[in-house]
Amino acid sequence: MSEYRHDPISDNWVIIAFARSERPDEFGVSRWYRAATTCPFCIGQESETPPEIARYALPGEALWRVRVVPNKYPAVAPASSNGRVRSAPFRKLAGRGVHEVIIESPTHVVSLTDLPETYAQLAFRAYADRLTAMRREPKMAYGVVFKNVGPEAGASLEHVHSQVLATTLVPQTVAAQHARWKRKNRTGNVFERFLAEEMEDGSRVVAQSERFVALCPFASRVPYEVRVLPIRHAAYFERTDPAHLDELARLVRDIFRRIEAATSHGPYNFIIHTAPFDTGDHDYYYWHIEILPRLTRTAGFEWGSGCYINPLPPEVAADRLRQL
Amino acid sequence: MSEYRHDPISDNWVIIAFARSERPDEFGVSRWYRAATTCPFCIGQESETPPEIARYALPGEALWRVRVVPNKYPAVAPASSNGRVRSAPFRKLAGRGVHEVIIESPTHVVSLTDLPETYAQLAFRAYADRLTAMRREPKMAYGVVFKNVGPEAGASLEHVHSQVLATTLVPQTVAAQHARWKRKNRTGNVFERFLAEEMEDGSRVVAQSERFVALCPFASRVPYEVRVLPIRHAAYFERTDPAHLDELARLVRDIFRRIEAATSHGPYNFIIHTAPFDTGDHDYYYWHIEILPRLTRTAGFEWGSGCYINPLPPEVAADRLRQL
Repeated sequence: MSEYRHDPISDNWVIIAFARSERPDEFGVSRWYRAATTCPFCIGQESETPPEIARYALPGEALWRVRVVPNKYPAVAPASSNGRVRSAPFRKLAGRGVHEVIIESPTHVVSLTDLPETYAQLAFRAYADRLTAMRREPKMAYGVVFKNVGPEAGASLEHVHSQVLATTLVPQTVAAQHARWKRKNRTGNVFERFLAEEMEDGSRVVAQSERFVALCPFASRVPYEVRVLPIRHAAYFERTDPAHLDELARLVRDIFRRIEAATSHGPYNFIIHTAPFDTGDHDYYYWHIEILPRLTRTAGFEWGSGCYINPLPPEVAADRLRQL
Repeated sequence: MSEYRHDPISDNWVIIAFARSERPDEFGVSRWYRAATTCPFCIGQESETPPEIARYALPGEALWRVRVVPNKYPAVAPASSNGRVRSAPFRKLAGRGVHEVIIESPTHVVSLTDLPETYAQLAFRAYADRLTAMRREPKMAYGVVFKNVGPEAGASLEHVHSQVLATTLVPQTVAAQHARWKRKNRTGNVFERFLAEEMEDGSRVVAQSERFVALCPFASRVPYEVRVLPIRHAAYFERTDPAHLDELARLVRDIFRRIEAATSHGPYNFIIHTAPFDTGDHDYYYWHIEILPRLTRTAGFEWGSGCYINPLPPEVAADRLRQL
């Protein structure tokens, strides 16, 4: 169905996902969202998705508010084989993994900001629960939660949802970053220093709660980029105390609202970075969230150099977001 | 005007380019190309661009075919200061550099395939000449040639053109890759092995000339990705013999034609990777070209993991491109 392939030039892995080319929006280039009337994520259409994995409701409520289902067009899937198929220079592995969708509303809305805060809180509980479940699956090494809003950000359905994906390998970029943070930690924690400096300076802080802070990073790659971090060390997002998750969901939902206002509801990506599953207890890494509005296009220079050109200074972005 | 900023978390540099937010297509999100009637790249509109740096014509011709001008909205610009402004964790440098545009036709066409081969050949000479000129500029460390075709690929003007950008620092991603290639070279050249394996296998080779080969890499990130490499070692694109450049231009133009046919003239990025200016004579690196059609969208998973999900196996892509 799919396979991991390694590029000996760049040292990166890609996922070749045959089944995904059968998606209704192949390549997402020319077709727009399906009409809401046929939305498979709406209440009453539950039979349109693969069998449900979990559902969330408020105590005493019969109807679901948040629902978890397998991705119908998974990039990776459970499989029996995990063997190395070829040796260097071309390495490939069966594309084992888990790919789920978190449907964040029974009604057809496009954002968590269209709903009361409790929906965002249930969604954040689902994120933590699914990561916790995936790390217990045999051989899973890495998991990530992400949300694509708008077709320019890679969404193929409009109905508010996120995805959780776990893979049997730690992507090279992630592994290299962790090796660096670990090495640097001998002389001082990178995240701790970053947080201390950003919070002392304050010019790029957008909002803050008791335990979390949201800011436009000093070296933001795109206009209105926001990074959300726990103020005190925590490596695993999925171990966050439920009461603290509620606080986080409230803060992130508020950031979504500010970004939507600043960008006229433009497209964005949302990513929860948590430590790879096998990194044990350690103090060098902080889980963190990235929100990347997709107003600029990644062009040849960025692809070539890995260096982003951002026309909006993050101090200006933070100031605008604070005022909204 | 602009500055390089370093992110202590990711270790990447970004360019904060204030002036670029004044571009007519700010953020490139909602506006389409300007009408051809006011195109500043068309013949007769030469006064609309900053003063010309170079022009190319065939012997005996009075009119230019290819023209080089400074970018009117540069990401980086020559400047007197290059000082380190702040120390860790937040480092920044004045955004010194050179950013030029290569206008590849006097008439309003969108692709080198709309013109006789000689235009592509003059454009490739301009790429090599401009990189050669930039490496002679004081303090320039890295240069890249790129072409954005279509608004989804980051283009703000339709008229066929490329860009050349030189920076005073080597982007972290590029520096890390070069360190890896150099280290790996002790046990075998990464590029040489890759080429030998791809050419022996043949299933992903799209086209080949005497000195160059074009193929869909084993671990292609996007549908119809093509990598063009010299068959024998060469680290610096800009040192290519002019006669060989003509051969390369012919091959690349043919690949453009095939990709345009396969993607219904979809958007793409084109990047020439050459060795950083200060890497001297070495054998570990091959300059190479990447062509990345932008049919898929970079979504949250790719941003989060650096791992791409590609729905089209490169063997299928190469087969389709060969037949066009």
